[in-house]
Amino acid sequence: MSNPAERNGLLIVFQPEGRRGVFPKGITILAAAKDLGIDLASICGGMGLCGKCKVVIRSGGELLNPLTSSEMKCLEPGEIKAGFRLACQARGVSGGRIVVEVPEQSRSGKQRLLVEGRPVEVELEPAVRELVIEVSKPTLEDPLADFERLLKSTGLSELDQVDLQVLRELPAALREGGWSVAVIVHTKRGILMVRPARSSRGLYGFAVDIGTTKLAGYLIDLRTGKVLSVASSPNPQIPYGEDVISRIAYASRSDENLEELHRVIVEGVNKLIEDACRSAGVDASEIVELVAVGNTLMHHLFLGLPPKYLAASPYPPVVRRALDFRASDLGVRILPSGNVHMLPNVAGFVGADAVADVLATGIHRSRELCFVIDVGTNTEIVVGNMSGMYSASCASGPAFEGAHIKFGMRATSGAIERVWIDPSDLSVQYQVIDDVKPKGICGSGIVDALAEMLNAGVVDTMGRIVTRESQRVREGSDGPEFVIAFKEETAIGKDIVITQRDVRELQKAKAAMYTGASIVMKEAGVGVRQIKKVYIAGAFGLYIDPSSARRIGMIPPFPLHIISQVGNAAGTGAKIALTSLRKRLECGEIVSKMRYIELAAHPDFQQEFLAAMYLPHLELDRFGDMVEKMDNLTVSNKHKALLERLMRRENRKPKCDDQTCGSPIKNG
Amino acid sequence: MSNPAERNGLLIVFQPEGRRGVFPKGITILAAAKDLGIDLASICGGMGLCGKCKVVIRSGGELLNPLTSSEMKCLEPGEIKAGFRLACQARGVSGGRIVVEVPEQSRSGKQRLLVEGRPVEVELEPAVRELVIEVSKPTLEDPLADFERLLKSTGLSELDQVDLQVLRELPAALREGGWSVAVIVHTKRGILMVRPARSSRGLYGFAVDIGTTKLAGYLIDLRTGKVLSVASSPNPQIPYGEDVISRIAYASRSDENLEELHRVIVEGVNKLIEDACRSAGVDASEIVELVAVGNTLMHHLFLGLPPKYLAASPYPPVVRRALDFRASDLGVRILPSGNVHMLPNVAGFVGADAVADVLATGIHRSRELCFVIDVGTNTEIVVGNMSGMYSASCASGPAFEGAHIKFGMRATSGAIERVWIDPSDLSVQYQVIDDVKPKGICGSGIVDALAEMLNAGVVDTMGRIVTRESQRVREGSDGPEFVIAFKEETAIGKDIVITQRDVRELQKAKAAMYTGASIVMKEAGVGVRQIKKVYIAGAFGLYIDPSSARRIGMIPPFPLHIISQVGNAAGTGAKIALTSLRKRLECGEIVSKMRYIELAAHPDFQQEFLAAMYLPHLELDRFGDMVEKMDNLTVSNKHKALLERLMRRENRKPKCDDQTCGSPIKNG
Ligand code: FES
Ligand code: FES
Repeated sequence: MSNPAERNGLLIVFQPEGRRGVFPKGITILAAAKDLGIDLASICGGMGLCGKCKVVIRSGGELLNPLTSSEMKCLEPGEIKAGFRLACQARGVSGGRIVVEVPEQSRSGKQRLLVEGRPVEVELEPAVRELVIEVSKPTLEDPLADFERLLKSTGLSELDQVDLQVLRELPAALREGGWSVAVIVHTKRGILMVRPARSSRGLYGFAVDIGTTKLAGYLIDLRTGKVLSVASSPNPQIPYGEDVISRIAYASRSDENLEELHRVIVEGVNKLIEDACRSAGVDASEIVELVAVGNTLMHHLFLGLPPKYLAASPYPPVVRRALDFRASDLGVRILPSGNVHMLPNVAGFVGADAVADVLATGIHRSRELCFVIDVGTNTEIVVGNMSGMYSASCASGPAFEGAHIKFGMRATSGAIERVWIDPSDLSVQYQVIDDVKPKGICGSGIVDALAEMLNAGVVDTMGRIVTRESQRVREGSDGPEFVIAFKEETAIGKDIVITQRDVRELQKAKAAMYTGASIVMKEAGVGVRQIKKVYIAGAFGLYIDPSSARRIGMIPPFPLHIISQVGNAAGTGAKIALTSLRKRLECGEIVSKMRYIELAAHPDFQQEFLAAMYLPHLELDRFGDMVEKMDNLTVSNKHKALLERLMRRENRKPKCDDQTCGSPIKNG
Repeated sequence: MSNPAERNGLLIVFQPEGRRGVFPKGITILAAAKDLGIDLASICGGMGLCGKCKVVIRSGGELLNPLTSSEMKCLEPGEIKAGFRLACQARGVSGGRIVVEVPEQSRSGKQRLLVEGRPVEVELEPAVRELVIEVSKPTLEDPLADFERLLKSTGLSELDQVDLQVLRELPAALREGGWSVAVIVHTKRGILMVRPARSSRGLYGFAVDIGTTKLAGYLIDLRTGKVLSVASSPNPQIPYGEDVISRIAYASRSDENLEELHRVIVEGVNKLIEDACRSAGVDASEIVELVAVGNTLMHHLFLGLPPKYLAASPYPPVVRRALDFRASDLGVRILPSGNVHMLPNVAGFVGADAVADVLATGIHRSRELCFVIDVGTNTEIVVGNMSGMYSASCASGPAFEGAHIKFGMRATSGAIERVWIDPSDLSVQYQVIDDVKPKGICGSGIVDALAEMLNAGVVDTMGRIVTRESQRVREGSDGPEFVIAFKEETAIGKDIVITQRDVRELQKAKAAMYTGASIVMKEAGVGVRQIKKVYIAGAFGLYIDPSSARRIGMIPPFPLHIISQVGNAAGTGAKIALTSLRKRLECGEIVSKMRYIELAAHPDFQQEFLAAMYLPHLELDRFGDMVEKMDNLTVSNKHKALLERLMRRENRKPKCDDQTCGSPIKNG
C-alpha cells in the first residue's frame, strides 16, 4: 500500500486480464470494468435485474458496500459464500485494493468498433438490446400470466414499466413464436417489443443531427454498429426564418405557429428516415431507437417546447437533462413504441449539438487542452479538457453555407471548392466538384477566395475591395467585385464573382466565430499556445482549408499540424450515443463539466467583434506569429504594407462603408 | 431481549408515540411507520428523492443497512452525525430492537377518513400529491433551465421521467404563476402537471368498478377524500354478449372486434366520468387519476388486450401485475397526462375485482378466517385471512340481477324487493321500492320469493313447482308458475309471477355460487364453523336478505350474526386504492397471498354443481345444523318431509325436467 493512489483512492484490479485503475470511492465494479474496457455482460444495463454481471471478489471484499436486495435475489446462497457479487451493485466505499475476477459466463463477447476517423473507440453497447428467450408454456399447474411468464424467463421480474402496445401484442407473439421470442429491451423505457424469435426482422437505430439549416441522418444496424445509409436534407423550417432568432420570433407569435414549426421539423426527420430506409432496404418499423441532437432551439422545436424565453436574457431553456420519449408521442415514424432519446442541452444557446461535438472528439476525457469549433449557421465553440470545458454559441449566419453570397451554393456538383489567386497577375485557378463547369461557389471555396484575395491584396484588412489594374477587379451592379470565373468558363452563362457585399457577409460571419473563440479562450484563461488539439467540425468544416480559415481570421492562429477536420461531429456524437450506452451516459458528465458563456451578454463582445471584422484582425500581433510561420503562404509585400499601415491606426474606431457592418447583433 | 419476537424478528419502536411492532427483516422504517399508523411525511412516495422522511435513530442503528446514495444526497453531514436517516431508505437488516424518533418537521399532518361502512380505516394519502412551490427566478448568474429549476425547488432533482406535455406547458405556468406553482406529482409517473399556484383548480380522482353488467364510478376530492358524486350505467358491451364467454368469443373473432369492445368500454367509462363531473360541477380535466377494477376480462378489454386465451385451459391472462398508463394513451378523458391505475389480476378468471374485494373488507390483514362472496354476473369468492387466501370466480349469470327472469328488473322504483309467503294459505306479502304499484321483481325479491316458496312447499328441493290447491299455483304459458302479485295490484296490468323456468335459472345461478364456495372452502381446508366473518358484496348483495340466501343454498349455512352486507366492495376497493397509496401497494401482497382455483377444471365441480342444484342442497346434512337453528325460519313439516325424502335417495343421480339444467358450463 505504498502507492499514494492506493492510499487515497481505490485500486481495482481485474483478473484474468490484470488490467487495473484507480477510481473515486462510490464507483461500481461494473463502471470500473467498463472504464478499463473489460468485457462484462450487463443485460439490464446495471439495474440489478438481470443478474448477468456476476463477478468474484478475490480480495478487498471488505471495501465494498454490503449485499443489496438485488444481489439477495440474483445470487444463490452458495455463490454468496464463494464471494460472488453483482458488478453493478457492488461499490467500492473505502479506499484500498480490490481484486475482481470476471468469470467466463459473465463475458458478453461484444464487438468493438472504431467510429470512422474518430479518436474515440466505441464499444457496441446500444441502450436497446434484443434478448432471445425460451418461455415455458403455461399449464394448469403453472398458469402464470403471459407477461409475468416472459419476465421470469428474461430475469427482469422487477420491471415495473410496460408499454401498452407490447402487452397487446404479447400473447400472439408468444404463441406464433412457439414460446420462443425476441424481447427488445430499452434501458430506460423497459420492453419496447416482443416478437417471434424466428422472425427475420432487423434491429436498427437512427441518429439525426438537426441543424438550423441542414438535417443529417444515419441509419445504423444496432447488431453490428454499421452505418447502412446516410440521408440529408435542408431543414424544412427555413421558410419560417433563416436563423434562430427569426424562428423563435415566429414560434412565439402563437401556439399554432409553434405547433407548425414542430410538425414541420418532425415531418422533415420522418422524410429523412424514409430516405435512409429506402436506400438501405429497411422497414422503418424495425428502427427501435432514434437519437437526436441539435442546438437548443432545434431541440425545443422538435419536442414542441415553447422557445420564447430562449430569446430574452437570461435565456433559460425549458429543460436541460437528457430525455426519452415514446416515438409515437412525438409523431416520429419508427417502431411506435420505440424510443426517442434527446441528448442534454447545456444552456439556451449551447445545445445538445455541442455536447455531441464533445462526445465525438472525446475532449472531455483528454488531458490536453482542446479547441472545438463546429461551423454552421450557429457555430459552437468548446475549449477545455477532462477537468472542465467552456463553451459558447455564435450566430455566425449561413454565409459559409453559401447563403447570402451572390454565387454561393451548397457543396454539390459544379461548386467551386478551392481557389488560388496569383498575387502577381491576379490570375485565378480553381477546383470544381465533379470536375464540371462551375455553377457557383461553396463554403470552402468562399473561404479560400477571401483568403487568396487578401493575400493578393485584392481586399485590404478592412475588407474593402481595392482597385487594381486587372479586368478581374471591377465595378459591378452591387459595387466593386472580383471575378473568380469568366462566363466562358462557367455553366451558367455568367461570370462568377465575389462582390463587396459578399466580403462584408463573410467578415461578419468570421468575426462572429473569432469573437466566440476569443471570448471563450479568455474566459477559460487559455492562450493559443496552450491549445494542443483543434477540431474543426461541421459538414462544411470537412472541406475547408484550415490555412485559409486561419488567414482570414475565422479561427485563431493555431499551428496547422494540431488541426483536425472531423466533419459532422454533432452527427457523429449522435451515432456514438446511439451505439454506446456508456458514452450516452457520459453526456451527463459533459454537461456538468461545461460552463457556457452568453456571448451577447459579455462585456467584451462589442469591441471584440469590431476588432475581428478586420482581416485577419485589428490587433495584428495576435496573428503576427502566424504570419511569420505560415506554412504555405508567402505574405506579399503589398499585403504586409497594408497590415503595417493598419497597425499604426489600431487605436482608431473601425470605419465601415457597409451600413450593416459593425452591428454585432446575434444574427448579423 | 427476552421477548422471542425480538430475538427472531425486528422490534421497531417509534417515539414520541411509543408505538411498536415486530416486523420481518428487510422492512424499511417508512413501511413500519405506515403499518403502525405513525404520521410520517413521504412526498416522493419512498423513492429517496424528496428527503422529507427524515427520522433520528435513537438506538439500534447497527441493525440497519448502511447509508444509501440517496441519503448521502439528502442528509447534511451534521444530520448524519446526529443519527438521521431517511425512513424510506433505512431497512432493518438484522434482528433486534430499533428505537426511532420522528421529528416534528417530518410529520405530514394528514387526515384520516373512514370509508363508509368499511372495517378498513384509510389514511388519506393518494398516489398523486400537489406540492406548492416557490421557484427562484432565473438570472444571468443563475440561468438554470426551467425544468431543472423546478426540480431543484421541489427536491425532486433525481426524477428522470418527464411528461412531454408538462414540459410544453411549464414555461407559461411558471411565469403566469409569478414563479409560484402547484406541482402535481404521481408516485409512479412523476410530474403530471404544473400550474400557477393561485389557480383555483381542483385535485380529483375517479374510482371505477367495471362490472360485466354494470359500471359504477365515484368522483373523489383527493384533497379531502370525500366522494363528491356517484354514477352508474349498464356496461355498454352487453349487446356484444351478456356473459364473459360470449364477449371473449366476440373479441377473439377479429382485431376490429377487440378494438370495438375496447372502444365501447372506454367510452362507457368516459360517459360515467362526464355524468359524475356534471352532477358535482367539476371539470373532468381536473381529475388527475383514475383507478379501475374489474374481472380479468373487463381489465383486458378496457386496456385493449386480447382476451382469447382467457377462454381456454389453462386460462392465462396477458398480465397480472398492477399497471399505470397515461390517460390519453387509453383514450380516458381526464387530465390527458393523468394516470390510469389498474389493480392487479390474480388469474384468468379471478381479477382485480376480487383483489379490490379483499382490500375493501381487509381480510388480508385479519387474523380470523373470513369468507367473501361478491355476487354478480360473475361471482367472486375469497376465503382466508392474513396468512393466505383462496379464491375462485363462478359464472353465476345475470339471473340475480333480474335478467332471464320473466318479471325480473333492476332494483329501481316499482321493483318488488321483499316477499313473504304464508305457508298455511300461500297468501303473499311484498314490499316495493318507493311504495308504488309493482312493475316487476328485483334480485333481493327473487331470492326472497324462492326461499319463501321453498318454505311454503310451493317448490320442492329439486326445484319443481308443486301443484297446490291455490289460485296462486297454476299452469302458465311457460309451464307451472306461482303468482306473487295479481294484475289488479300491479302497475303493468299483468300478474307478476315466478315461473318454473325462472326457478331453473335461479337454481343454476345459486348452484354456481354454492359450488364455488364449497370447492374454495374444501381447497382451503376450512369448514363452515371455522369461518368467523362473512361479507356479502355486490350492488345487489346490499339488499339481499341473508337468511333467504342461506335458505335456498346460495351460500353455505353461516350463522346470520357473522354476515355483513358490504355493497359494492369492488368499487370500495377501487376508492381505497385511489385514496391510499399504502393500501394500493397492499394489493401486491394480496395477489401474492392468494391462490385461486380454476373451478371448471376442478375434479369435483360437476358433482358439486349437480348436488347444489337442489334447494338448499342434495346433501341436506350440510344444512341440517342451520335448518335446526335458523333464526327466523320455522321449517314446515311438509318441507321437512320433502327434505327427508330426498335424503333417502341421495345416491341417485338428480333428474331434471329442464333440458338446460345440469349442464355445469361456465356460463349456464
Ligand atoms: S447488470 Fe444486470 S444485474 Fe447487474
Ligand atoms: S420518502 Fe422521499 S426521501 Fe424518503
